[in-house]
Amino acid sequence: MPFIHDDFLLGTRTASRLYHEFAAPEPILDYHNHLPPQDIAEDRQFANLFEVWLAGDHYKWRAMRCNGIEEKYITGAATPFEKFQAWASTVPHTLRNPLYHWTHLELKRYFGIDDLLNADTAQSIWDRTSEMLSQPDFSARGMLRQFKVRALCTTDDPVDDLAHHLKCAADGLEVGVYPTFRPDKALAVHLPEAWNAWCDKLSAASGIEVRSYGTLLEALAQRHEFFHSVGGRLSDHGLNRCHATFVNEAELARIFDKARGGTAATPEEMDAFASGVMLHVGRLNAARGWTMQLHLGPIRNNNSRLARQIGADVGCDSIGDYPQAETLSRFLDRLDGEDALPRTVLYNVNPSDNFVFGTMSGNFADGSIPGKVQFGSGWWFVDQKEGMEWQINALSNLGLLSRFIGMLTDSRSFMSFPRHEYFRRTLCNLLGTDVEAGLLPDDLGMVGGMVRNICYSNARDYLRLPVS
Amino acid sequence: MPFIHDDFLLGTRTASRLYHEFAAPEPILDYHNHLPPQDIAEDRQFANLFEVWLAGDHYKWRAMRCNGIEEKYITGAATPFEKFQAWASTVPHTLRNPLYHWTHLELKRYFGIDDLLNADTAQSIWDRTSEMLSQPDFSARGMLRQFKVRALCTTDDPVDDLAHHLKCAADGLEVGVYPTFRPDKALAVHLPEAWNAWCDKLSAASGIEVRSYGTLLEALAQRHEFFHSVGGRLSDHGLNRCHATFVNEAELARIFDKARGGTAATPEEMDAFASGVMLHVGRLNAARGWTMQLHLGPIRNNNSRLARQIGADVGCDSIGDYPQAETLSRFLDRLDGEDALPRTVLYNVNPSDNFVFGTMSGNFADGSIPGKVQFGSGWWFVDQKEGMEWQINALSNLGLLSRFIGMLTDSRSFMSFPRHEYFRRTLCNLLGTDVEAGLLPDDLGMVGGMVRNICYSNARDYLRLPVS
Amino acid sequence: MPFIHDDFLLGTRTASRLYHEFAAPEPILDYHNHLPPQDIAEDRQFANLFEVWLAGDHYKWRAMRCNGIEEKYITGAATPFEKFQAWASTVPHTLRNPLYHWTHLELKRYFGIDDLLNADTAQSIWDRTSEMLSQPDFSARGMLRQFKVRALCTTDDPVDDLAHHLKCAADGLEVGVYPTFRPDKALAVHLPEAWNAWCDKLSAASGIEVRSYGTLLEALAQRHEFFHSVGGRLSDHGLNRCHATFVNEAELARIFDKARGGTAATPEEMDAFASGVMLHVGRLNAARGWTMQLHLGPIRNNNSRLARQIGADVGCDSIGDYPQAETLSRFLDRLDGEDALPRTVLYNVNPSDNFVFGTMSGNFADGSIPGKVQFGSGWWFVDQKEGMEWQINALSNLGLLSRFIGMLTDSRSFMSFPRHEYFRRTLCNLLGTDVEAGLLPDDLGMVGGMVRNICYSNARDYLRLPVS
Repeated sequence: MPFIHDDFLLGTRTASRLYHEFAAPEPILDYHNHLPPQDIAEDRQFANLFEVWLAGDHYKWRAMRCNGIEEKYITGAATPFEKFQAWASTVPHTLRNPLYHWTHLELKRYFGIDDLLNADTAQSIWDRTSEMLSQPDFSARGMLRQFKVRALCTTDDPVDDLAHHLKCAADGLEVGVYPTFRPDKALAVHLPEAWNAWCDKLSAASGIEVRSYGTLLEALAQRHEFFHSVGGRLSDHGLNRCHATFVNEAELARIFDKARGGTAATPEEMDAFASGVMLHVGRLNAARGWTMQLHLGPIRNNNSRLARQIGADVGCDSIGDYPQAETLSRFLDRLDGEDALPRTVLYNVNPSDNFVFGTMSGNFADGSIPGKVQFGSGWWFVDQKEGMEWQINALSNLGLLSRFIGMLTDSRSFMSFPRHEYFRRTLCNLLGTDVEAGLLPDDLGMVGGMVRNICYSNARDYLRLPVS
Repeated sequence: MPFIHDDFLLGTRTASRLYHEFAAPEPILDYHNHLPPQDIAEDRQFANLFEVWLAGDHYKWRAMRCNGIEEKYITGAATPFEKFQAWASTVPHTLRNPLYHWTHLELKRYFGIDDLLNADTAQSIWDRTSEMLSQPDFSARGMLRQFKVRALCTTDDPVDDLAHHLKCAADGLEVGVYPTFRPDKALAVHLPEAWNAWCDKLSAASGIEVRSYGTLLEALAQRHEFFHSVGGRLSDHGLNRCHATFVNEAELARIFDKARGGTAATPEEMDAFASGVMLHVGRLNAARGWTMQLHLGPIRNNNSRLARQIGADVGCDSIGDYPQAETLSRFLDRLDGEDALPRTVLYNVNPSDNFVFGTMSGNFADGSIPGKVQFGSGWWFVDQKEGMEWQINALSNLGLLSRFIGMLTDSRSFMSFPRHEYFRRTLCNLLGTDVEAGLLPDDLGMVGGMVRNICYSNARDYLRLPVS
Repeated sequence: MPFIHDDFLLGTRTASRLYHEFAAPEPILDYHNHLPPQDIAEDRQFANLFEVWLAGDHYKWRAMRCNGIEEKYITGAATPFEKFQAWASTVPHTLRNPLYHWTHLELKRYFGIDDLLNADTAQSIWDRTSEMLSQPDFSARGMLRQFKVRALCTTDDPVDDLAHHLKCAADGLEVGVYPTFRPDKALAVHLPEAWNAWCDKLSAASGIEVRSYGTLLEALAQRHEFFHSVGGRLSDHGLNRCHATFVNEAELARIFDKARGGTAATPEEMDAFASGVMLHVGRLNAARGWTMQLHLGPIRNNNSRLARQIGADVGCDSIGDYPQAETLSRFLDRLDGEDALPRTVLYNVNPSDNFVFGTMSGNFADGSIPGKVQFGSGWWFVDQKEGMEWQINALSNLGLLSRFIGMLTDSRSFMSFPRHEYFRRTLCNLLGTDVEAGLLPDDLGMVGGMVRNICYSNARDYLRLPVS
């Protein structure tokens, strides 16, 4: 039996039935990822596994470094095949890491390959996949079609002109390709050089000269409206923890002027400023029926040597242990008090915060929308079988699993769509085990209906994207 | 087979034997709940499921809001049956939430109903239960008898005259109904208006004019003695975290005078003041052989809009992430250093604190009483199967499970007594699984004896309530 | 079937094969413990179970106190046999605690005893074991041989003359007995009395008068070099949390002078000073290819009454909830930025920190050494089946399990070597379960090879101790 077989991850007969009858047929709505929209607009064809699989994947880089591989073979000067070989030799050392499952699930689903990847099989797998990758089915759009992706949401800077998204729409692409509004750079008044350069770009993009706190908010509103016109329905925010220091407009204006004048804001000023901008984006989201995603908790760029040498987002981020409850509560409450709390998804990267996040989301349900504040799916380091199980169990115990909007890839790679399958199998395995243990009623229609909703319909109904 | 059957939650034959032979026969000692003593004193009869089941249950309200139900049907103007229908339509959406298990266990044990509650079965279940609720067996006292409740402890304000408890005793009720001393309001010098009104009530109740820090302590001591005379043997305290800022008497007197004069204490002053009052209550507890319960860790009233509209304790509290270890250590150590540490039960609401609480309790064992400082049963959001398993496992690994005083309902409803059954099944399931996996000796007498003790005798022996 | 049988802890056939074919044959490299080197140098013979088993074991003391045993029978004036009886009567109350498993595993492996220890079997077990303990196989060295201990590392003060380690080497003992450099006392400038006494000892031991910050560093370097000459290859550090407050040399010199003059450093000064000394030791470790062990997170001496009566390390320490991520990141990054980050093992005592530690270790892999920064095995309160499983699972999901250097006893007792067996069985049980669930390839050679490496070879290759 191949390692990836029909009942991979499915430990009971009920789990198998739930997956194959209810989960597998559902299309994919990948409402949060980091795919390059240009690749879709240009329908990029990939030359080999390195390009499509390794070139942008800091998970793999990190594993290779831990395995004692030289940086030359990771992000350095080695050839694509040498890098692939280094990765192949690392794979057997990833036993029990999600990379081991992902690797073989991806080789199977994209290329039908059952061989286990290692130093010995590397050449053969490289050759076979290179040939397949040259076929039209393996272009960026071809892969979206293969995996029944109904729509996806990329992650974009408010200053982006969204030309690639517009191109996809103009081409009549049957897969919805929508932007997500991610204004993290607007907050960084503690780094005035980068922030001022960004403000200049925002001025150019919006046609509104960003010369005051008020014009900054206007320019962001203009971009928000533009994103909406291109199908954007979500914002996204990556923060150590929520900002919830509320000061008056005059103080916000003062901090703006200080930073726009080139002086770094203090940490307290930055916190207050970021709180103000985040409230503004929250209000815009609420007004347009958007969904606000809060990704909270990492500690980034721990390795400053590697950051200097290679840059950010190269596999040197990890999990922080910041207090989250109070600031998250105050931020959500502030918006709620103005009747301006949008649909919101809370993602924690530290699984120790699961119960804080899972219960916080229940405080702001207001009867207007089922599952209004969502406890988001296992994210980043917690996006693996055990982490997803913890999140599903916490959500089950603390809220309503049946209203969950489910999985997203959060990925930079077109080869990550089987993560939805991985999630669905994990979900069905939990539920099937529960049914067989008598913890859920033995009613496949009821349990399977919930599965189907979590796989697709809940996200479709909740997010209000232009999909059916 | 009905959903709630004989071996519900019991996954092995040994688990089943442990439950049915050792756990099920034991009576109930519900040493902490929020039942209204008036209902017992008056032997209240309930008109319908709304009154007995929904009217006071913020768990259900919260789930309904998450399900998108309007507030009108939760705490608003709708009729009792409309509210029940709204709840019934929500129940299928609570799959995997403890509410799903509790709901059907309660319908089964009180009314013998095997139907699953949903919009379709709502009318029939309402009708059948309404009729049964009109029978004497379903009065407040009738339900206590049905569930073999030997004694229970309500949660009471020190200013309470305990008339209802006295009435129960005067009636010769065979179920012990005892008060618990909960002086949280005595600490709130940061909210001087409410605090002063409370101090006035305390003056009236105690006959001691509360005009100084010293007289406050005297008045509390008078109430403590009065509670003792009515069978009270426990105090209870709901705190974000322990207070452990110890200042001298003069400073405490100054803070008292400031707040009694109507000026709000600063957070630092409040912390110091609360530390002083808590030490006082701890000493009173130690002197009378009482048990002090510390419920630590929630973050309350997150939703200020709903708090303004409906009030406190309406389902908008959740789990905080406060540092707990240092202040808890200092508070317990301070009392221990005076030889005035009473029996103490530590309850954490954040399961991430399980190992902090589970190990802290072991620091103050002094050989005087088995299990002197208890790590309390899973509480509030952790009072579900997984949360109880985590607490039982943590206690097992870090301390002595065999000395555990076990379960309490913490409930406001007379229909919550099957929570003891739910806990016992969970406990027996863990132990039975362990026996069959060879992790415990296959000696049913030894393991079953421990089960029996945890179900009843340990609490009886430890708490020193007037029960046998 | 006896409680401790061939497949104890091994729940599947694959688990059993992995353990018996791959794990069990491997020797032991116990790279961190607190064994008294004097006992090995003198090849101590133990009179009875009290001496070898109870006299130094604060885990047992703590359990006895929780069981309501008087201090007299724990650390007090009772006879050795009375204390043993008190322990024996406590053992049945430790069901589900690791002590129950350890106790019977140790009785079985050292003495072949299958009886369960309790008040009734105490006398017989005492008698049988006393006789066996008088045999040469049960001397300190005899026990090391019985358990195939290839090498072990004790924990030693830099001022130690290592005479016992030298004696073992001079005797040609086939078990390597190496010191570990633990300079915790060098940091304690907030406790000037003890710190100055220690500095005086350091002067004497090193021959370098410690009269300035610079000479302190020189003296430490001298001792580090001496430890190296005796086979030391590890340092060890027990801290609440990392120190990462970096000040200049002048400031460090000022703090040194203040404390050397008898004035206690402030907490901030202590933190800065400790940061400086820790960086120095880190640099020494990196220069000599040593491994730095960071044991982080306890809250110690919670019970000041018992600390006054009996001293430190008597079972009144527990788990803290200090923020760990930021200071750990800054400390490691600082050394890494100087190219002076040694091999490092991070141990957390609070399992809620597993994901913080498990991801932090991946930030500083630099491709130079496989598994350069290790996430260390479950420690202290987490050194039990569930805690080890959590650590193994976290490491698996977040890093490379295959590069794990595995188990250590951390024990003060010669009867703790079966902890390696306990760990190996737990590891094999996890992996065997995974194989049978299809989560790992059904390739016993591949999975078993990983098991073998984790049991011995990884530690041997990584630590660079003089063993083969």
